[in-house]
Parts: sequence; structure tokens; C-alpha cells
Amino acid sequence: MLKEVKIGIIGFGTVGAGVASCLLENAEVIARRTGLKPVLFRIADIDIATPRNIKVPDSILTQDAHSLISESDLVVELVGGTGCAKDFILAALKAGKPVVTANKALLAEHGEEIFYAAEKSKADIYYEASVAGGIPIIKVLREGLVGNRIEKILGIMNGTCNYILSRMSTDLLDFDTALSEAKRLGYAEANPSLDIDGIDTAHKAAILSSLAYGEWFGMKPIHVEGIRGIKNEDFKYSSELGYTIKLLAVIKQESDDVQIRVHPTLISSDSMLANVSGVFNAVMVKGSPVGETLYYGRGAGRDATASSVVADIVDVMLNLKFGSHRRVPAFKIGKQYRNLTPIQDIATRYYLRLQVLDRPGVIAKIAEILAGRGISLSSMIQREKQSAENVNLVVITHIAKEKDVMSAVLELETLDCVKDKLVLIRIEDI
Amino acid sequence: MLKEVKIGIIGFGTVGAGVASCLLENAEVIARRTGLKPVLFRIADIDIATPRNIKVPDSILTQDAHSLISESDLVVELVGGTGCAKDFILAALKAGKPVVTANKALLAEHGEEIFYAAEKSKADIYYEASVAGGIPIIKVLREGLVGNRIEKILGIMNGTCNYILSRMSTDLLDFDTALSEAKRLGYAEANPSLDIDGIDTAHKAAILSSLAYGEWFGMKPIHVEGIRGIKNEDFKYSSELGYTIKLLAVIKQESDDVQIRVHPTLISSDSMLANVSGVFNAVMVKGSPVGETLYYGRGAGRDATASSVVADIVDVMLNLKFGSHRRVPAFKIGKQYRNLTPIQDIATRYYLRLQVLDRPGVIAKIAEILAGRGISLSSMIQREKQSAENVNLVVITHIAKEKDVMSAVLELETLDCVKDKLVLIRIEDI
Repeated sequence: MLKEVKIGIIGFGTVGAGVASCLLENAEVIARRTGLKPVLFRIADIDIATPRNIKVPDSILTQDAHSLISESDLVVELVGGTGCAKDFILAALKAGKPVVTANKALLAEHGEEIFYAAEKSKADIYYEASVAGGIPIIKVLREGLVGNRIEKILGIMNGTCNYILSRMSTDLLDFDTALSEAKRLGYAEANPSLDIDGIDTAHKAAILSSLAYGEWFGMKPIHVEGIRGIKNEDFKYSSELGYTIKLLAVIKQESDDVQIRVHPTLISSDSMLANVSGVFNAVMVKGSPVGETLYYGRGAGRDATASSVVADIVDVMLNLKFGSHRRVPAFKIGKQYRNLTPIQDIATRYYLRLQVLDRPGVIAKIAEILAGRGISLSSMIQREKQSAENVNLVVITHIAKEKDVMSAVLELETLDCVKDKLVLIRIEDI
Repeated sequence: MLKEVKIGIIGFGTVGAGVASCLLENAEVIARRTGLKPVLFRIADIDIATPRNIKVPDSILTQDAHSLISESDLVVELVGGTGCAKDFILAALKAGKPVVTANKALLAEHGEEIFYAAEKSKADIYYEASVAGGIPIIKVLREGLVGNRIEKILGIMNGTCNYILSRMSTDLLDFDTALSEAKRLGYAEANPSLDIDGIDTAHKAAILSSLAYGEWFGMKPIHVEGIRGIKNEDFKYSSELGYTIKLLAVIKQESDDVQIRVHPTLISSDSMLANVSGVFNAVMVKGSPVGETLYYGRGAGRDATASSVVADIVDVMLNLKFGSHRRVPAFKIGKQYRNLTPIQDIATRYYLRLQVLDRPGVIAKIAEILAGRGISLSSMIQREKQSAENVNLVVITHIAKEKDVMSAVLELETLDCVKDKLVLIRIEDI
């Protein structure tokens, strides 16, 4: 019986050091719980000279990832990105070695190829840390909720955006100030586009929706909007109306069709998701029969990510012990929906903010354009002069079709009495 | 290769009907995800005549639980209680049949005997639904967080209590009115003691703490207090001070020692747990390295419970398919702590409410008694005459030792200026 499992880690960056540290510190606890001892056997990186503030013997460090693959029982890919990380994973799988990875971008963009390689070689590939950091959401979705039809997933899955939006909401900072602060604190990259333009959240949405609905979607069908357009006055108006604004991944099954989208979203201030602040992540999963459930924790960072990587390592170790490889396959095709709904065919409620001239007849004109497309209003705020003659007009609609709203927006923006671009934020009723 | 698994359910009550219904409705989805089809093969109950609003063929109903055990591949025990349910489980395990159960009382009180029987026969026993209904907290703790040392678990795990406390908090109902309402809505039993005296929560705390710390604790070491003593004025004062009151299971490791207790607890109104209202449950788990995580969902009821039972069924089916029985053993002994801390040796912060005479010198006297035991105060409220001459005095302490606080309480209650019994609620800083 296999008692010790030799673990090779490729990538000795922040997360690599976190995983190594967790394996060293908690190996005893893991052994008591599982009867199996993870052994930190090799770590590969181009740079093996820089100290990492963690005590590993020099003898386990190597620059040769390919020897690491052939000598280890289990390969952990923590290089990140879609370049050589992919080569390492494919090489490991080809050699029949099980793989654990945290690489969301790679899976979202090349999941099919990687899972096909895993299936061919009958090797495990686990990727818990690729979505929502320390939250074991992939295990929950594939195992804990395996008996459910998934009706809806709403996820706050990018700590950078949630930090920025929380600061805008609580302290009414403007976007640029909040972003600068996030950079200073190390929560945002120098080039923050991947985060604030919603792409990172979309990577995670691609993975979760594929697991929920049995087809590997990739990035193509996902409608993605980031948070650059949100102003702090939008928080003020939302809050008055009982909402807050979050960057959400919205994954939904409606009349057997599935929609996947990422965009800033108004949600009720009373909801559990609204209370998720700072760099924390949370994923709400509504299933049948389970109803509404929610999972919350740190979505990134060395330690939270390490927790998920090590959980995967233990799953693979158990599979090695029992010969139960692919007990829960990396991805199982089995389509559980009818069609994908394009963004223009969704229907939801909308928050619209317009800067309009403060003149008689303006509201009537706007209401008429909306009514002409069957869009009815549930509330309206007009207050606070922005400049000499402009005022903000905020409108909340009842459920309306996206294409009707978009066509109304285009017409509204042509009006002389409407200044600047209109701000549109979709609403999710929880 | 085993493709269809014959499932026998003992107990055709609310939960039994929910599990049967989920297996019938979602068998296709489960088969697509796992390649295995659960077959609803037999249901045993004393009463097989009463209609259950669910279409199962009469031919699968039986009054003979023992034949069901011998004919099924997998036995689901949903009888509940510590009587014949135990016999059925032991009989199934003795026959080498894997068991799924939702029976928290039975496990909390006879876990050791049952797990010993499972180990002897090498059969699986899974029990996800025994704690926090639809929330897959047992899977999370045993698998998703397997690489973590567990520093703290705080659980809202009884929907009846949480409903009552939510109504007292939001609408300032008194305890009896909220309890009557809970009974009327079917959230509380005619005899609500098991719930409102904290015993049900303690059953769940016994299970979670055992999983977290590697020794089967049972009920003995758990300090248990219920919610009968909470008055709606306690919500008023708490709220002023930035807190709300929840019935919490508090499981903690401090300097390698473990404490397990169930009692009403003041927690910050800003915390995620404070926002868990109505019949919902939530469990906060703080681990190292993962940090703070939280799991939220319905803690009881036919559908939420069915979701967890079916997840266990699938886990067992996969073990049957791969021959990986006891891949994650029912309970693995492997002590991960030093000593159990008795309640008198804990240290925490306290909320104390006294009814005192509205006379000069009273506060000085009380402060002196507390100070004499090294108990220092962080805040104090005195307001609102309760009767001709009594006023409420509310005190929040800094961290103090339980035994010092208890001895101070005894002395305070002997004072002429202190009327009635003192209300003491422990505070948990999250």
C-alpha cells in the first residue's frame, strides 16, 4: 500500500511557497486524517536562488521541470498563464502523472485539450484553486451538490474588483482613487485589466458553468463587462433604492436554456452577497432540491490558494492509494441544458442613470421612449444638479428584454436633452 | 462494472419522501455527471398506506426493513432517533452494506459504536445530512479543508432557534410570541426543548468537533445553554452596542486545547453570521492556512436534507464502482489537540444585564465587585426605567475568565440593589 506520495511543484512563486509551507507544516495533521503522508519531493523554478522565507532543503530545488515530472508521483503546476504551464501539464499527463493546478486562465481557454489529454492517459487533473481561492466551490458543485439541478450561480470571484467596489460603496471613493489604493496594497496588478475588465471573473465563470451544465463552454459564450464605468454616485443612488453594486458572474438556467454573463450588478443590500466586502469572494448556488446556498472565503493569496491546492493533492493521493483514478473525472461531458441564451435575448431588471437637462418635458420624453418599447418603470430618482443645467435621472425598470432596453438606450442617447453616455447596470433579484 | 445501484430507504417520512423524489427527478442528471444511475429499489416504513404526494410504485414499498437491507446495495436510514434506527444501521453494516444516514442524535450519542461496526465490516457510512441540512459542511471539513489546522468553527445550526432569534431581533417580538409563531409555521415542534435548549445544536457540534480534532467526543464535554433566557430588550441593548444575538456552536482551538460549547452569543452586526436570518443555517470555519470561510444554506426540511443524502448516496456509489470503500473513512481517530478546556476555564468577553435600583452608589458597587476579580469593562449602558425604581444596567467586559465572571455574578446577585437574576451572554469576536 502506497503510504508516502512524492509531490513535485513546478513554480516557486507566492502560491508555490504557500503550498510548500502548508505541506511542511500540516503533513502530520493530513497523515492523521487520511493515513497518507504528502512528501514535498521537488520544487522546480527558473529562479531557485531568491530566498522565499520558507525552509526547504536546497536539494529539492531544481530548474529542470521535466525531470521533476518523471520523478514525482504527483505534479503541481503553479506557474500560471497559458504558456509553458500548458506544456508542463500536458507532459505530466502524457507520462500518466496526476496533476493539480490553480490555473484558471489555462483551463478556461484550453480546458478541452487538457481534459482530453487527461482522459487519454487516465490520469487525474484537479483544479480546486482555479476558482474562488480557498473556497472549495468545485468540490461543492461536483460532489456536495451532485444530486441537484443547478438553477443559478452568482459569484463574487475577483477580490480586486470587490475591494474597489467596497471602498467606493462604503467610503464613496471614486474609481481611480480606489484602484490606486488597491494597487498600493498589492490587491491590484500594475496592469489591472485582467481583473477590472471582468476577464478573470469570466475565466472562473467558464469553469463553474461548464461543471454545472455538462459542456465545456470556454470564454466565447460569455458576455463580459468590467467595472470601469461605475461612478460613486451610482453607489449613492443604488443605496437609496436598497441596493449595492457588485461585479457578478451570473450563470442561470431559465426554461432549460443557460446564460453566462459577467457584469456589474445591482443586488439587494439585505442579501448575503451584498455583505461580502473587501477582497473576499463568495459564490451563491441555487439548486433543486437544495435551494439557496452560499460559500464565502478568501478568493486569492498565498494561503487561501494553498489550502485548495493541498485539498486536491490529498484527493489525488487517495485516488493513488485506492486505484480510483478519475473517480470524479476532471470534466464529464453530459449536456444538461437546451440552448445558450445570447445576451440580447436575456430579460432582467435594469438601473439606468442619465444626465439630462433640467427642463420641463424631459422626464415625459424619456418615459415615452421607454414605454414605447414596453419597458415599465418601478422607481425613479431625480436629484442633485451636476452642473449649471444638468441633473442625474435614475430609473429602475421592471423586467424587460435586453434588446428593447439597448434600443431605447441608443435612442435616448440621441436626444438633445440627454448629455454624456447613459450608465446601465443590470439588476439581479436574489 | 457496476452501473446501477439499488438503493433501499428505511423511513418514508418527510425526508424519506424528499430523497425518493430527488432520486426520481434527478437520476438522469446524476447519471450524466457520474456515469452511475441510482435506482430507487425499496422503501420501508411501518406505514406504507398514507399517500406521500410522490409517485412511487406500490411494489417497492415494504414493511420489512430487514429484507430491504439484504436486498439493497446501499441502505439509507431516515427513521431518526436513537431507537430502532440504530438497530437498522448496525444490521446493515453487519451485512456489509454501506449506509447513509441523517441521524445526528444517533451519531452524537452512539457514534463510536456505529463507526466501530462500520470499520469491522469495512462498509461505508456517510452522514452529510446530519449537520446543517443542505450545506455540505462535512465534505468541506473532511475533504475541502483537509490540509488545514482548524482554529475555530462557529455554527448557526438550528433553524428553529435562528427563526425565533431573528424575529426577536428584527421585530422585537418577545420569546414566547416568536416561539408560538415558529410552532404555527411548522418550524418548531410541539415540544421544542430539543431545539430551543440547544441540544440539537450540541449534537451537530459533537459531530463537527470530532471531525475537526480527531477524537469522538460525544455529548459529554459540551457545555450547552439554550435561548429561553433571552429577552427582547437584550436585542435592543446589543444592537445599540453593534451586536446581535445568535445561538452558536463555538468550537475552538486555543494554545492547542479545544473547547466545545453551545450558547446564545453576541456577535458583531457587521459579520456574515449576523446576516444569517430566519431558518437558514451557516457555519464559519477558520483554518490555517485558509483563513475565514463560511457556508450557508437551509439547515433542515425535506429538500435541503435530500440534497445532502443524495450526495452521500453518490459518494457511496462511486466507492462501490471503484472498490474504494472507506476512501474517506466515517471517522478517523488521530487526536489533534492537547486537552479539552472545561467551561469554567475559558476566557472571553461578556454581556451582563442587571436590573438594579436607581440609586446613587449602585454602579460604583457593581464596578467594584467586577474590578475586584480583575474584570474590566469596555462599555456600559444605563437607561429606561423598567418599573417604579428599577433600571436595566448593561455591561460589556473585556476578556475575562469564566470562573471570575461566574463568581462575580453570584456576588452581584446577593446585593440588595440587584433585582432578579442577572442575564449573562458570552461574546464572540469574529
